[in-house]
Amino acid sequence: MIKDEIVSILKSVLGNGKEFIPLHEPVFNGNEWNYVKECLDTTFVSSVGKFVDRFEKDLAEFTGAKHAVAVVNGTAALQIALKLAGVEENDEVFIPSLTFIATANSVSYLKAHPHFIENEEKTLGVSPTSLREYLNSIAEVRSGQCFNKKTGNRISAIVPMHTFGHPVAMDELLAVANDFHFKVVEDAAESLGSYYFGKHTGTLGLLGTLSFNGNKTITTGGGGAILTNNKELAILAKHITTTAKIPHPWEYTHDVIGYNYRLPNLNAALGCAQLEKLPELLESKRKLFHLYENAFSTMAEVKIQKEPNGCKSNYWLQTLVLKPSLVGERDNILSATNSAGIMTRPAWTLLHKLKPYSHCSKMNLPVSESLEMRLINIPSSSNLIHA
Amino acid sequence: MIKDEIVSILKSVLGNGKEFIPLHEPVFNGNEWNYVKECLDTTFVSSVGKFVDRFEKDLAEFTGAKHAVAVVNGTAALQIALKLAGVEENDEVFIPSLTFIATANSVSYLKAHPHFIENEEKTLGVSPTSLREYLNSIAEVRSGQCFNKKTGNRISAIVPMHTFGHPVAMDELLAVANDFHFKVVEDAAESLGSYYFGKHTGTLGLLGTLSFNGNKTITTGGGGAILTNNKELAILAKHITTTAKIPHPWEYTHDVIGYNYRLPNLNAALGCAQLEKLPELLESKRKLFHLYENAFSTMAEVKIQKEPNGCKSNYWLQTLVLKPSLVGERDNILSATNSAGIMTRPAWTLLHKLKPYSHCSKMNLPVSESLEMRLINIPSSSNLIHA
Ligand SMILES: Cc1ncc(COP(=O)(O)O)c(C=O)c1O
Ligand SMILES: Cc1ncc(COP(=O)(O)O)c(C=O)c1O
Repeated sequence: MIKDEIVSILKSVLGNGKEFIPLHEPVFNGNEWNYVKECLDTTFVSSVGKFVDRFEKDLAEFTGAKHAVAVVNGTAALQIALKLAGVEENDEVFIPSLTFIATANSVSYLKAHPHFIENEEKTLGVSPTSLREYLNSIAEVRSGQCFNKKTGNRISAIVPMHTFGHPVAMDELLAVANDFHFKVVEDAAESLGSYYFGKHTGTLGLLGTLSFNGNKTITTGGGGAILTNNKELAILAKHITTTAKIPHPWEYTHDVIGYNYRLPNLNAALGCAQLEKLPELLESKRKLFHLYENAFSTMAEVKIQKEPNGCKSNYWLQTLVLKPSLVGERDNILSATNSAGIMTRPAWTLLHKLKPYSHCSKMNLPVSESLEMRLINIPSSSNLIHA
Repeated sequence: MIKDEIVSILKSVLGNGKEFIPLHEPVFNGNEWNYVKECLDTTFVSSVGKFVDRFEKDLAEFTGAKHAVAVVNGTAALQIALKLAGVEENDEVFIPSLTFIATANSVSYLKAHPHFIENEEKTLGVSPTSLREYLNSIAEVRSGQCFNKKTGNRISAIVPMHTFGHPVAMDELLAVANDFHFKVVEDAAESLGSYYFGKHTGTLGLLGTLSFNGNKTITTGGGGAILTNNKELAILAKHITTTAKIPHPWEYTHDVIGYNYRLPNLNAALGCAQLEKLPELLESKRKLFHLYENAFSTMAEVKIQKEPNGCKSNYWLQTLVLKPSLVGERDNILSATNSAGIMTRPAWTLLHKLKPYSHCSKMNLPVSESLEMRLINIPSSSNLIHA
């Protein structure tokens, strides 16, 4: 049986002895204790402190973004990035149908509407080819702005999401966005350490966002960041994520409606330590990929998702891709692996199938529909290969 | 000169030797490091973990609220509490003119409109008497709902804020809200440990909110909580602050548009330790009040704000109240004290004077206007009296 074969291959890679292997757990073996203790000792645990400033500098340096602004989480980062990209009430924003719900929610917080587009097998991300074709039929560019001819709404942005750490075909996507006049905000929540032709994901669009949730490659407990090469947008991002207060020794004046989205120093301290270890973590995850790739090479029915050509993936979540003929096996495989103490999960339910988003505009989504039933994430923690 | 007299009285209480005395700093002398270290050791730093569950239980126990839901900060807590109270787009929500901008921002996030009301000297909070009089002239109750006759908007809620820890006159306010059919959501961000006739602030309205920002009585770095005695609302609060995910071992289904507002376990660990020390902190703050009260008893021109009758204030921020004749002295006093290394600050700029809120409806606000120019917060940390 396919499912038993998969369990046994996973066990061969992960070792037989363990009772439970989580999908992804953080590893704290660097300066985490030291930095967090320093926060407590100095009492700088909140919105001001040296670690939150340093974390932003370190993130900019690591990703090559000119600016990084640290915030409470990846969802908040997306909300603010979309706002800064000019997304307004009643606009439409293209997002993949196959993504975590936060991508859609951040659009909704601005009272704009997600418009779901097709994914592709090669990258697991949005398909620039299908999108261009779709736009040729539904979109119209007027005075430098893109409109949906059917709904009459403006289409102001697209959010490519680098699924499980695999970069989207950005050159082709940027060309479509350029031709049709909407902004690109990259959801790089899952792709810290992933590169598209040498450029870090999240630095190719106007703005990009990261997440440091507990299940991500590095964690700050909860946390996120906004990346941009645009200085003005970076200044605005910092301003509106810190309640838009005008600096003054004692007066409280705020010039716009801001947010309390600053990452606390305590969480940033963890982030600084984690970031020091990131190159090592990425190496481990890449080695794990090769172990899985090798182990599954004997099975014709499944493959392990590999980084796209010209890209370097962080291999955040290792992903089994079932052959189309195995669609019906997905849930059996999920049951068998989880019962065996090996945590696995499917990709997200496609967002247009969820009640809060079922009314939204969408393309035909045959590839997304197929991927939904064929993707299975398998244990991916960076500490697995030392086992 | 008044300002020199004030500096010298402050020095007499706070000691002469120190170079800089902050307005409020946290004190970590309990289990903070043990609990935070336990988070790191177990790797449970994110949205799941024993401390975040315990923090909610401990908060409920301390405040006497039936339920507490821990969230990323006090602003998020208010936004969700207002949403759960039924505040909808284009509604009006009464809030004091004298409060931190977060109170108004949380209303704006729901696309509702703040409607500014008058404060009173006795409590520094909203005045039920002025409000009732105002409502008699501008409001109309139709089919059990309150409407603003001028704007036509529904008035769905009021947010009394317990200024610097001093409880609002809640009985009178609850009576007004009851008579005019709108909901009460208490902004108890500043009043953890404050009681109104034996009941903890934040537990008298339909919902209440707390903040654990770095400048508050206890801190989690960043953090907040929603309090309520209503089980259904508590369940909903937890659900929509955790992305509205339906529990399932592996499937990702979300039934409404939720938020990623869960307090990380790392921050909750700090909160659990801080809460253990809260009774001690409150005692120190009360002692500091008595020292200030005594020291300023020689000055006819200023008094120290004292807890209202029948109330127990947490004395979060100690507050000098200048006599009306000294209005023009406020900035001189602020300059002199800050130059002397004693951090002080005025109350917030009244919100209706800020650009983003200058267009909002408001009552006549003579008391708020006067208080704005006469309140000065002075150093209030709980570790000051051990000096
Ligand atoms: C694709 C995607 N977008 C956005 C987010 C939101 O990040 P966060 O959980 O930090 O809010 C996540 C991660 O949870 C994600 O996987
Ligand atoms: C009156 C009031 N409301 C709301 C808040 C918001 O809390 P937070 O800073 O945790 O978002 C604060 C504190 O900053 C406050 O003082």
